Amino acid sequence: MNLKQARERAEALVAQMTLEEKASQLRYNAPAIPRLQIPEYNWWNESLHGVARGGTATMFPQAIGMAAAFDSELMQEIGDCISTEGRARYNEMSKRGDRDIYKGLTFWSPNVNIFRDPRWGRGHETYGEDPYLAGTLGVSFIHGIQGDGEYLKAAACAKHFAVHSGPEAIRHSFDAKASKKDMEETYLAAFETCVKDGGVEAVMGAYNRVNGEPACASKTLLQDTLRDKWGFEGHVVSDCWALRDIHENHKVTKTVEESAKLALEMGCDLNCGCTYESLLSAVDKGLVTEELITKSCVRLFTTRFLLGLFDETSFDSLGFLDVGTKEHEALAHRAARESMVLLKNNGILPLSLEGVHTVGVIGPNANSRKALIGNYHGTAQRYVTVLEGLQEKLPEDIRVLYSEGCHLWKNNVEPLSKPSNSDRLAEAKTVCDYSDVVILVVGLDETLEGEEGDTGNSDASGDKKDLRFPGPQRELMRAVLDCGKPVVVVNMTGSAMDLVLADQKAAAILQAWYPGALGGEDVADVLLGKAAPSGKLPVTFYENTNDLPDFEDYSMKNRTYRYFTGTPLYPFGYGLTYGQLDVVFATVD
Amino acid sequence: MNLKQARERAEALVAQMTLEEKASQLRYNAPAIPRLQIPEYNWWNESLHGVARGGTATMFPQAIGMAAAFDSELMQEIGDCISTEGRARYNEMSKRGDRDIYKGLTFWSPNVNIFRDPRWGRGHETYGEDPYLAGTLGVSFIHGIQGDGEYLKAAACAKHFAVHSGPEAIRHSFDAKASKKDMEETYLAAFETCVKDGGVEAVMGAYNRVNGEPACASKTLLQDTLRDKWGFEGHVVSDCWALRDIHENHKVTKTVEESAKLALEMGCDLNCGCTYESLLSAVDKGLVTEELITKSCVRLFTTRFLLGLFDETSFDSLGFLDVGTKEHEALAHRAARESMVLLKNNGILPLSLEGVHTVGVIGPNANSRKALIGNYHGTAQRYVTVLEGLQEKLPEDIRVLYSEGCHLWKNNVEPLSKPSNSDRLAEAKTVCDYSDVVILVVGLDETLEGEEGDTGNSDASGDKKDLRFPGPQRELMRAVLDCGKPVVVVNMTGSAMDLVLADQKAAAILQAWYPGALGGEDVADVLLGKAAPSGKLPVTFYENTNDLPDFEDYSMKNRTYRYFTGTPLYPFGYGLTYGQLDVVFATVD
Repeated sequence: MNLKQARERAEALVAQMTLEEKASQLRYNAPAIPRLQIPEYNWWNESLHGVARGGTATMFPQAIGMAAAFDSELMQEIGDCISTEGRARYNEMSKRGDRDIYKGLTFWSPNVNIFRDPRWGRGHETYGEDPYLAGTLGVSFIHGIQGDGEYLKAAACAKHFAVHSGPEAIRHSFDAKASKKDMEETYLAAFETCVKDGGVEAVMGAYNRVNGEPACASKTLLQDTLRDKWGFEGHVVSDCWALRDIHENHKVTKTVEESAKLALEMGCDLNCGCTYESLLSAVDKGLVTEELITKSCVRLFTTRFLLGLFDETSFDSLGFLDVGTKEHEALAHRAARESMVLLKNNGILPLSLEGVHTVGVIGPNANSRKALIGNYHGTAQRYVTVLEGLQEKLPEDIRVLYSEGCHLWKNNVEPLSKPSNSDRLAEAKTVCDYSDVVILVVGLDETLEGEEGDTGNSDASGDKKDLRFPGPQRELMRAVLDCGKPVVVVNMTGSAMDLVLADQKAAAILQAWYPGALGGEDVADVLLGKAAPSGKLPVTFYENTNDLPDFEDYSMKNRTYRYFTGTPLYPFGYGLTYGQLDVVFATVD
Repeated sequence: MNLKQARERAEALVAQMTLEEKASQLRYNAPAIPRLQIPEYNWWNESLHGVARGGTATMFPQAIGMAAAFDSELMQEIGDCISTEGRARYNEMSKRGDRDIYKGLTFWSPNVNIFRDPRWGRGHETYGEDPYLAGTLGVSFIHGIQGDGEYLKAAACAKHFAVHSGPEAIRHSFDAKASKKDMEETYLAAFETCVKDGGVEAVMGAYNRVNGEPACASKTLLQDTLRDKWGFEGHVVSDCWALRDIHENHKVTKTVEESAKLALEMGCDLNCGCTYESLLSAVDKGLVTEELITKSCVRLFTTRFLLGLFDETSFDSLGFLDVGTKEHEALAHRAARESMVLLKNNGILPLSLEGVHTVGVIGPNANSRKALIGNYHGTAQRYVTVLEGLQEKLPEDIRVLYSEGCHLWKNNVEPLSKPSNSDRLAEAKTVCDYSDVVILVVGLDETLEGEEGDTGNSDASGDKKDLRFPGPQRELMRAVLDCGKPVVVVNMTGSAMDLVLADQKAAAILQAWYPGALGGEDVADVLLGKAAPSGKLPVTFYENTNDLPDFEDYSMKNRTYRYFTGTPLYPFGYGLTYGQLDVVFATVD
């Protein structure tokens, strides 16, 4: 089935629909049209680093960690694995009548926005700050997801077109001002690659305005650039409830019908949200023509035909036994190992266990499943925290002592404790005193770096104010790093943190990102030399935000390795490995 | 140091204190008196099933599960283990200056209230519905905690004196009316045993009134019964902020000073809360005499001397390496195995793996750490969920498939899913279809059965309305139990549930309670026949609440195995084991 065939079948099918039916199909939760044997279809599915939100699936490292592997072949394998599991899940769920949200074959991934500012809470969904890297990995991911067979294995979606990169709190009303140069060299480049080289089936518009135009209804972006200049032939979907923002927050239009008209005219085919529920009303008011609705409806059914949703395909044999296989878990392990970036090593790593009787494992992320999973994650069939990985991998005769160390962000774990210092600090110091070496596992999780939470698809969360660890973790790090024992810091975040103190005092620092459900094993393998760290930073690790422009400033001046004029703590591309490569590789299994 | 010596030293020390100093020592967070070399001491610590809330410690099954073992020797070993860890933690924390809440040696456990009604959210903290069992296990636990050495190893506290057993929502104002017969035969019996046979060092008053008197200031309970009749010589502590209830909710007094006066006069020595901050004001108003304050202060310092807090003791050598040892973990495993009650078995258990290629593990509690821990828990150094236990213990060549099945209580895991049916149901059915046998793990956790949450020491939670599983779990159970495959139901709750459908349709039912941090391994061992289930129900499992009196009715008529006239689903004391005992025991390691 080539595009021409798919489009012809789409045109023929859409031609049989009433206006009402056509309009209904432009919503993310498109209802069935029984008389035409069209089942309902929910377009919203996620697969940022594994099939997400629908149930059990293999979980890969968060996108920023996958990017740190700088490995486009790996990315394609991951994409392929995801679409295998996605197909398998789709087959099983649809067979049992579940065609609801997060069960379809249209994945709203990858996120190829540029991680412009380290404060952005969603930066860890991206492939970092370099447009070339983002584009290259995006293309590999898309190829993996979509495959190269007769039918699309699944549909990928490059988002959020374009420029989108915080602040989360004002994303529904913000107008990002970007120069022509920054647009071309930074904000559009990866999208262009995904369209031209990746053949991505869908593009999602952003919440914000770009130089005055709402991204989801931007002539400049959707018509002039995406379709006319780049020749994009897939469909465009709005970010969720982004079209409502056009009248409610951007105030570019006055009514919901005007927003529907503007978005549809500019080429937004599919509405995640409820604005296109007013399409018929917009037709009644003379704002929207049936032709325009037909055009988008044909585009959407073209995708459905390309996916083979009305045919038998070679993918139909995939089933639940193809989800979470050992091979897929092995790929997740490989990705996690490749993702880890060794930022400092005084020679302590790989850990020599000679003379080591007791290993202390300390910190709020040490035994946290949440620290493994990033955001836009699925449900794993197995989780291995860093503590569990070390308990499993360290020899039996080594005692592992554990302290939570502090709450992830609250001053105390227990509410009635004195506010003067953390109620796990004395325990952490105790563990240090008894240990020969200390693994200090700090960082964030999706509750601290995440997404503005008004669309029902995320907890309340958002950006970072600065690069500092939460107060209790700073207190913990000061105490542990001064304990007199060698300390290895494992930082589990999706973004640059102020690691200045750790850089001064730790024996080693491993940036583990959010390494996926099994990632604790991989952290342990890297620490113990069963794998060599090979990740490189896909973002600049600044010392702090003092030398950066305002978060709201979308000029790239003095941002990212390409334009930053200061001295970063660790530059883009940085990452150590173990010295004696021959020895190290010999121990890789 | 005998009681007489401790009291003399206490009297001598208290004699040197000013009135202000003495009054300050009657609060749970007693400040230091530097001029008398008295360090601060926070009386509030918890150890219901392991040292709780202070940090890392070995976690045993929740109290109701320990009770199901019907094993008083085990209870004493557990108590001894807890006080070893408690001492070790106290030594380490106090050495490092942390003498805050949850760091002391006065443990406000056990809870020997009678589990009068299956709706009570805190029932799982108790040893069940039988006063004799509660008293016997209470005594063993107390002996384990307190030891029989020169000094108290730690101080236990029998709570909540008396009658206390819900409803949580009205506990601060409720007047429990209990007959003389029920008081003697049911509500007081276990306390009497704990005092007379257990020599318990402390008793905590309840929130509610008992026959008109606030329990924490009841002449009948504290003076006439506890001290005069039973000869109790330890100290009495109020439940937390219970004294405030006397004027604010019970309205037995008009002012905070009057509440302080009443409680102190009736023999409540220690105030968890802030009411005794008004003791000096009560003295000023002529309500309270210095003699009365002195008397309670001497009692409290007697406990501190009995604990050896002002001496060197043989316990001083205990340290962090004595916490969470392999031996302690082995004891937790033993307790978990003994706690499990086999409610039904058509012969499927122990699971024969002949011809089994795929095991399905389904349910919201299958991979839940929260389902392991009950309430009043510590932080474990390792958690093994039921899914993890099965993954670890099943042979490598058996595929384990997993589905969360449903949210613990919400209609859907993902917010935007259709309300029509659960968004994990199709996946659960899929797992069933691919499995040779299904392990369905349902139940509650401390967020669903717990404690009225106004004292800062618990999440908002409370009683059960009835015995039914939350709606999504009922839907899941109906679907899975009808899947055509043999289904073993593992129920993780701390109380009786409506298991009627499971009893009809499941191949086997295992009541696993909240089995402690490592309990998933023990569930797996029991399912796979590496351990034989030997627990017996310490509470009646009713079919429903239809035949029970109102929750607020404190008459024992038609409650518990002793007075219930109906036919329960599973009676008190019920519990199966595996048929071929010789074979089974041969496989116990």
